[in-house]
Amino acid sequence: MSEESVPPEWDVIVVGAGPVGENAADRAHKAGLTVAIVEKHLVGGECSFYACSPSKALLRPIHATRASQRVQGSEGATVDPPGVLARRDAWINRIGTSDRFDDSGQVGWLDHVGITLLRGAARLTGKLAIEVDGKPYRARRAVILATGTEPTVPPVPGLREAHPWTNREATTSRRVPDRLAVLGGGVVACELAQVYAALGSAVTVVELADGLLGRNEEFAGRAVAEALERDGVDLRLGTRAESVSRLGPSGEVTLELSDGSSLTTDELLVAVGRTPATDGLGVVEVGGQLDDAGYVRVTERMEVKGFGDDEPWLYAVGDVNGLALLTHMGKYQARAVGDLIGARAAGREPDERTTVPWAVDAGSPQVVFTDPEVAAAGLTEAEARERGLRVRVVDLPMDKAAGAGLQAEGYQGQARIVVDEDAGVLVGATFVGQDVAELVHAATVAIVSKVPLTTLWHAVPSYPTMSEIWLRLLEEYGV
Amino acid sequence: MSEESVPPEWDVIVVGAGPVGENAADRAHKAGLTVAIVEKHLVGGECSFYACSPSKALLRPIHATRASQRVQGSEGATVDPPGVLARRDAWINRIGTSDRFDDSGQVGWLDHVGITLLRGAARLTGKLAIEVDGKPYRARRAVILATGTEPTVPPVPGLREAHPWTNREATTSRRVPDRLAVLGGGVVACELAQVYAALGSAVTVVELADGLLGRNEEFAGRAVAEALERDGVDLRLGTRAESVSRLGPSGEVTLELSDGSSLTTDELLVAVGRTPATDGLGVVEVGGQLDDAGYVRVTERMEVKGFGDDEPWLYAVGDVNGLALLTHMGKYQARAVGDLIGARAAGREPDERTTVPWAVDAGSPQVVFTDPEVAAAGLTEAEARERGLRVRVVDLPMDKAAGAGLQAEGYQGQARIVVDEDAGVLVGATFVGQDVAELVHAATVAIVSKVPLTTLWHAVPSYPTMSEIWLRLLEEYGV
Repeated sequence: MSEESVPPEWDVIVVGAGPVGENAADRAHKAGLTVAIVEKHLVGGECSFYACSPSKALLRPIHATRASQRVQGSEGATVDPPGVLARRDAWINRIGTSDRFDDSGQVGWLDHVGITLLRGAARLTGKLAIEVDGKPYRARRAVILATGTEPTVPPVPGLREAHPWTNREATTSRRVPDRLAVLGGGVVACELAQVYAALGSAVTVVELADGLLGRNEEFAGRAVAEALERDGVDLRLGTRAESVSRLGPSGEVTLELSDGSSLTTDELLVAVGRTPATDGLGVVEVGGQLDDAGYVRVTERMEVKGFGDDEPWLYAVGDVNGLALLTHMGKYQARAVGDLIGARAAGREPDERTTVPWAVDAGSPQVVFTDPEVAAAGLTEAEARERGLRVRVVDLPMDKAAGAGLQAEGYQGQARIVVDEDAGVLVGATFVGQDVAELVHAATVAIVSKVPLTTLWHAVPSYPTMSEIWLRLLEEYGV
Repeated sequence: MSEESVPPEWDVIVVGAGPVGENAADRAHKAGLTVAIVEKHLVGGECSFYACSPSKALLRPIHATRASQRVQGSEGATVDPPGVLARRDAWINRIGTSDRFDDSGQVGWLDHVGITLLRGAARLTGKLAIEVDGKPYRARRAVILATGTEPTVPPVPGLREAHPWTNREATTSRRVPDRLAVLGGGVVACELAQVYAALGSAVTVVELADGLLGRNEEFAGRAVAEALERDGVDLRLGTRAESVSRLGPSGEVTLELSDGSSLTTDELLVAVGRTPATDGLGVVEVGGQLDDAGYVRVTERMEVKGFGDDEPWLYAVGDVNGLALLTHMGKYQARAVGDLIGARAAGREPDERTTVPWAVDAGSPQVVFTDPEVAAAGLTEAEARERGLRVRVVDLPMDKAAGAGLQAEGYQGQARIVVDEDAGVLVGATFVGQDVAELVHAATVAIVSKVPLTTLWHAVPSYPTMSEIWLRLLEEYGV
C-alpha cells in the first residue's frame, strides 16, 4: 500500500475554525482525542474579524463618549473617528493598511494545544471522510460541522452587480462614506447604521418591516428606531428596495424604493439576514439532512439527522444548524458536542447534565450593542404566548431604579419581564437603555434555572446599581 | 376622659424614615394597615442625603470620564469639579447654597400613599407605646425600629474636638479641601478618598489594618489600594492615629501617627465604622435586647428578642439590627417585616417564602463604587471556610472575557468564584474592575437560588459582554 493511499487520520475533524469550531475542537481535544480543524479563510472566524468583535470595537468608543456627555461633571468628550477605526483595526489584527488580517494568534493557539490546522475548503465525501481542497482525510470518531453562515444577498434586481457591502466590508472599512444606505433592520443593520452615523456618514436605513429588531420585544425596536433618528439616521420602514444600480465599480449607488422614491448613496450595506454556509459541503450527499432554508438538521445532541439508528459520526454546531445565530450559543453547543464525542470515544456514558445543550430551547440571550443597548434573554411575550404559556408581563421604565438615574442624567430605558404564571417562573426578560448589557445575565440564570419568583425575591440587587430594576419589577409583579 | 389622655393611634408605627423605614411602612400600609413614621431629621434618610446617593452621584462623572479616557476613539473627557458638586447637589435636593436639603419629595410620597409623618425623636415607653419629642403615641399592632447607624468617632485624643468630617460632611461638602486626611479603609473611606483625589485634594488615608476593604476578598482591597495610589492618594496602612489637634475651629488639623510621623491636613474624614442609632430609643427599657455593640437583637423574622413567648410587637430592620449594614439588605428585611405584620394583623398565616429574609445569611451583595469597582455577593473564601464548607476557589483576570478588553484598553480586573464542593453550588463571587457593578446580580441569583453548577453551565453569557467571565470561570472550574 503506497503512502498516498492512506489519508491522514484524526479522531475528530472539525470543519470551520470560527469560535464555535475552535470550542468544539478544544473540548474534544481536552477529552483526549486527536483533532484537526479545517478553515478556508481566517482562523477565528466571522465573529473575530467581521462581526461581534469589530462591531463592538467600533461601538464602544461611541458609547463611552456619550456616557461621558450624559453626566454632569464629565466634560469635553468627543468621538474621534480615526481613533475609532484604528481601535477596530487593532482588534481585528489588520496587517498594516491592507485588507488582510493576521490570524497567527489563533493559529498559535491551535499549535500550542496540539490541534492540526488544515487550510482549505472542506467537502464530506463519505462516512468519516472529507476532502480539503480535494485532498482526502479521515476521522476515526466524528466530523463536526461549524461552517456558520454567510450574508444573504436578496434577489433585488441589480443588487449583486452593485457590489454592496456586507457585514464584512462594513465592519472592516477604513473609509467612512459620505452617504451609506443600509438594507435591513436587524442587529447588524442597527449597530452599523449607528456606527457610521456617529463617524459622520449620512445614513439611510431601508427596512421591509414596520419596525427594527423584529426578533425582540417591539418596544426595544422602537427605542432603537428613535435613537437612530436622533442620531440623524433617515429611517425608511415598511419600504422595499425594488432595484439597485451603480455608476461604475465605485460610483454612486441608486436604489428605487417601493414608496416610489429613489435614494442615492455612496455605499450600500446589505444586512437582511444570513444563509447557512453549506454550499458544496456535501451534507446531503453523505446522507445528512438540510431544512428548507439550508440549515443542517440536528438532534438535541447536535447529531446531524438522516442517519437513522447508525452510530452518530456527523455533528453540526453553531449558526450552520440554525438553532440560534449567535456566537455564544454556538460555542455552547460546541462545548456540549466536544464533551459528548469525548465521552462516546472513551466508551463512557455521556453526562446528560452537560452534553445536551438544552438551554437553546429556553430562548437565547442576546445583546444588541446599539445606544440604547438591547439586552434580552428567554422568550419575548409573543414567543411565550405562541408556546401556549399563560403569561403575565411587567413593564417598567429603567429609571425606576435609582442606579439608572445616577448612571446618566435623564436616563431613558425600559425593562420587561415575562412570567409563566402557571410555573411561577421567569421565561423572558428584556432591558433597553444605556449600559444594560450586563444586566441580562441575571435573567439568563433565572430563566435557565427556573428559579421560582418567590426565591428570586431573595436575590437582592445592590443599591444603587441599575440591577435594582429587578426589585422594582418583582414589586410591580406583586411577589 | 379628656382628649389629651388618648394618644393618637395607628396600626403600625415605624421609627426612622430612611429607605428601610419607608419600605417597612409602605408594605404594612399596602397590607391594609394604618401607619405612622417618625423621623427626627430628613425623610429619605442617610442613604439619600449623606451616603449611597451622593457618593454615587459624585463618583459617576469620575468613572464616566475615565471610561472615555480609556477607550481609543473617545477623546477629550475631563472631570469638571464644579459640575460634579452641582450634580451631587441636585441628587440630594440641596436648598440653594445652604447646608439644608429638601425632603419634600419624600414627604409628598408619604402624603400621597397616606402614611402619617411624625417629625421628632422617638422613644419607646412601653408595649406598643412611644413618645415623639415627649408626645405619646400608640401602635395597635407593631412598632418597627429602622433608625440605622451613625458614624463611629473612635476615642482618639483630640479627635472629637477637631470636629472631623463624617460621611455627612464629606458627601455634602461644597468645598474641595486642598488636603484631606481619611481615617479608615472601608467602603466610605475608599469611595470618598477617590472622589476628593479626583476633585483635586491631596488625600492621605490612615488605616489601622494592613489592607483596604477588609470585609472583601483580599485581592479586591489590593486592587483598590493600587488604584488609589495611582490617583495620588498617600496610603498609610497598618497605621493608627494616636492624637489629633486642630488650630482653631477651621484651621489645620495635625495627626500624630503610630509610625512616629505626623500629618497635617485641612480636613479630616472619620470613616472607621458605624454605631447603631439606639441611644435614647428605650429598647432595653421596654424589654428588648441589644448586643454588645448596641445593635438590636432580632429573630430570623426581625422580631426584637427579649420578649419570650409574648406575641411579637417590636421589630427592628436595617442597619440598627446589625445583620447587614447595607441599604438594600435593610429594605429587603423591611419588605419581609411589612408583609409579616400585615399577615399577622389580618390573622393570616404569613407566607414563609416571602416573610423570612433568609438571604441575609447567604452573605449580602455589595458594590463598592470605587474605580475599579468591587462587586461581591455571598461569602468570601475565608468566610466560607469559617463556616466549615469544603471550598474550591477559581480566580481569573477579567480580561479572559473579550468583553472586558472591548470595554477599555488594557482592562484590569479580577474575578473569583467560591464553590461549595459538597453541594456543587456557588456560595460566593467577587468581581473587581471597571463597570463590574452590574455583573454581581447574576451571582446573587445563583447563590441565593443554590443553582447547581451543572445547571449554571447552561446559562450562557452573551458575547461579547463582560459577563462572559462567567463562562471562563466555569470552564476553569471544569464543569
